[in-house]
Amino acid sequence: MTTSFSIPTLDDVARAAGVSTATVSRCLNAEQKVSKDTRDRVMEAVDALGYTPNFNARAMAAKRTYTIGAIIPTMENAIFARGLQAFQETLHGLGYNLLVSSSAYRPELEAEQIRGLVARGADGLLLIGYEREQSVYDYLGKRGIPTMLAWSYLPDRPHASVGFDNRASMRVLADRVISMGHRRVAVISGIVDGNDRAEGRLNGIKDSWVANGFDLADLPVIETPYEIENGATAFETLMNGTQKPSVIMCGNDVLAAGAMTRAKELGYDIPNDVSVTGFDDIELAKHLHPSLTTVHVPHREMGRTAARELVNLIDGSSTTVHRQLNVSIIMRNSLAQV
Amino acid sequence: MTTSFSIPTLDDVARAAGVSTATVSRCLNAEQKVSKDTRDRVMEAVDALGYTPNFNARAMAAKRTYTIGAIIPTMENAIFARGLQAFQETLHGLGYNLLVSSSAYRPELEAEQIRGLVARGADGLLLIGYEREQSVYDYLGKRGIPTMLAWSYLPDRPHASVGFDNRASMRVLADRVISMGHRRVAVISGIVDGNDRAEGRLNGIKDSWVANGFDLADLPVIETPYEIENGATAFETLMNGTQKPSVIMCGNDVLAAGAMTRAKELGYDIPNDVSVTGFDDIELAKHLHPSLTTVHVPHREMGRTAARELVNLIDGSSTTVHRQLNVSIIMRNSLAQV
Repeated sequence: MTTSFSIPTLDDVARAAGVSTATVSRCLNAEQKVSKDTRDRVMEAVDALGYTPNFNARAMAAKRTYTIGAIIPTMENAIFARGLQAFQETLHGLGYNLLVSSSAYRPELEAEQIRGLVARGADGLLLIGYEREQSVYDYLGKRGIPTMLAWSYLPDRPHASVGFDNRASMRVLADRVISMGHRRVAVISGIVDGNDRAEGRLNGIKDSWVANGFDLADLPVIETPYEIENGATAFETLMNGTQKPSVIMCGNDVLAAGAMTRAKELGYDIPNDVSVTGFDDIELAKHLHPSLTTVHVPHREMGRTAARELVNLIDGSSTTVHRQLNVSIIMRNSLAQV
Repeated sequence: MTTSFSIPTLDDVARAAGVSTATVSRCLNAEQKVSKDTRDRVMEAVDALGYTPNFNARAMAAKRTYTIGAIIPTMENAIFARGLQAFQETLHGLGYNLLVSSSAYRPELEAEQIRGLVARGADGLLLIGYEREQSVYDYLGKRGIPTMLAWSYLPDRPHASVGFDNRASMRVLADRVISMGHRRVAVISGIVDGNDRAEGRLNGIKDSWVANGFDLADLPVIETPYEIENGATAFETLMNGTQKPSVIMCGNDVLAAGAMTRAKELGYDIPNDVSVTGFDDIELAKHLHPSLTTVHVPHREMGRTAARELVNLIDGSSTTVHRQLNVSIIMRNSLAQV
């Protein structure tokens, strides 16, 4: 199956159909200019040879490939799954296909994948957040690739964005936590370096902490990659610290799920021994026991809006837009009054 | 940003560097044949113009794009997330990039995406299960695209496969359920049409039911798409039937999670009023309350194996292989003795 790797060309089709390559090209790109008889003969040859119109040729003719590229940091844990699914569904309704790569939170891999998607003719790109090398933005600018940044609302950035204010959103939750009497707060944050969403969320907690008159030295923070197991380990470390926290605020629901699992294993009762909060409101959140108090992100709305606005950019029917979505605090059972 | 959409060509680079297109081509494909001075000049022009080597030209030279395409039925609910992440990580270690499309369980969309990925130069494809139009396989055969089928073990099929026996695996769980005294069994299955995994799982339950001497007429089955909400609705329908089941076996964990959520809302105690089982052992399963008895699928191992074997196929260092992975029954707290 792997031998005889030969790609049929436009020439092959022309030869098989007994017409010129220009005629084949016309058949593939502008059917009305060719007689039905010729067209049938050409399409028969196309099918027989398994010819797929060369994407560059098609791109040259239509100036479009009707393909959008998206690069997300991870495919695991469903953090981006729901938004991306909505993004794809809306794109498809608009006549576009989606190709997705996952960068494993590695900036150099993301940069390589951006070039790869552009080389494969992506009409536009969806990227998560803004924090990446300026050279990447320079490259996208030079190539004129419409780019939508999602999961962050970035009104001051030159690129279009659809998202929410991670910092302000987490601050609202932290204000609520403190208003419920918590004075021993600890944080399990995602890795802040290279991740503006994680950084914003951590800063939102710090903003609240300082505004309430507390000292940042009294706010223990563990930074760790967004994985369940890491949330579990960080929970144990924090509970073994000199001062047991009354609440552990997590950078996302995945870390919170890990914290709650370890809490159960160690015999802690949530929320009576210690409260836990999350961020994202992924499917898992409401199924945890107790159910997780978290920040609800409108993933589907974000995906749909990103798709529509990105296609508008490609069409040239809009210029750079910044769309802010509303998040909300979902009070469930993992956060108690002190 | 969307205006002046112009793609720099090999000609543009040659003109900017003051060399022939053949020289540019040599610089991009076989550096050692060009003097350092010329090469520097060309690469400067490449950078300045933001030129990305035409993927076809590169494919012709290397006969490889080092890109693999994968098409999964859905990006939601994390059913494929973990396996796909492992697939991507292993591929990347082998020097390949992954592009993913999601077909929303729609065969005609999958067929279109397959052609799109091939047109964009995919060296090989990962597809889920085997049930699709013969014309798709004919097309892949004509184009000589190495293809790996995953999530199913298919020793009798001409294409390579990495997976497990969905039917036999679910049968083991059903045998266990019946051995625990359950005689009023009901099933919430995924849509069987076009989904050999769902069909295999449903048939596994039927095999066990019949082998234990029961009548298929006494085995209520609801088929519904794999979504949490559908599991909830189906649970309610089954519990309102003429004979309340003592156990509801679900085609996957997503349906089971929906069933358990509705059970809680309706005041049923699981497993004392009714037992529930799943399939897949996605992250959610152990976090449900009570934790879900299910069939554990080694998603990471499947992803890693699929990547290695697919690259072997592309390299021509192996012929079609069929790799069967072991699944196991995970007894948690949602299934009780009758």
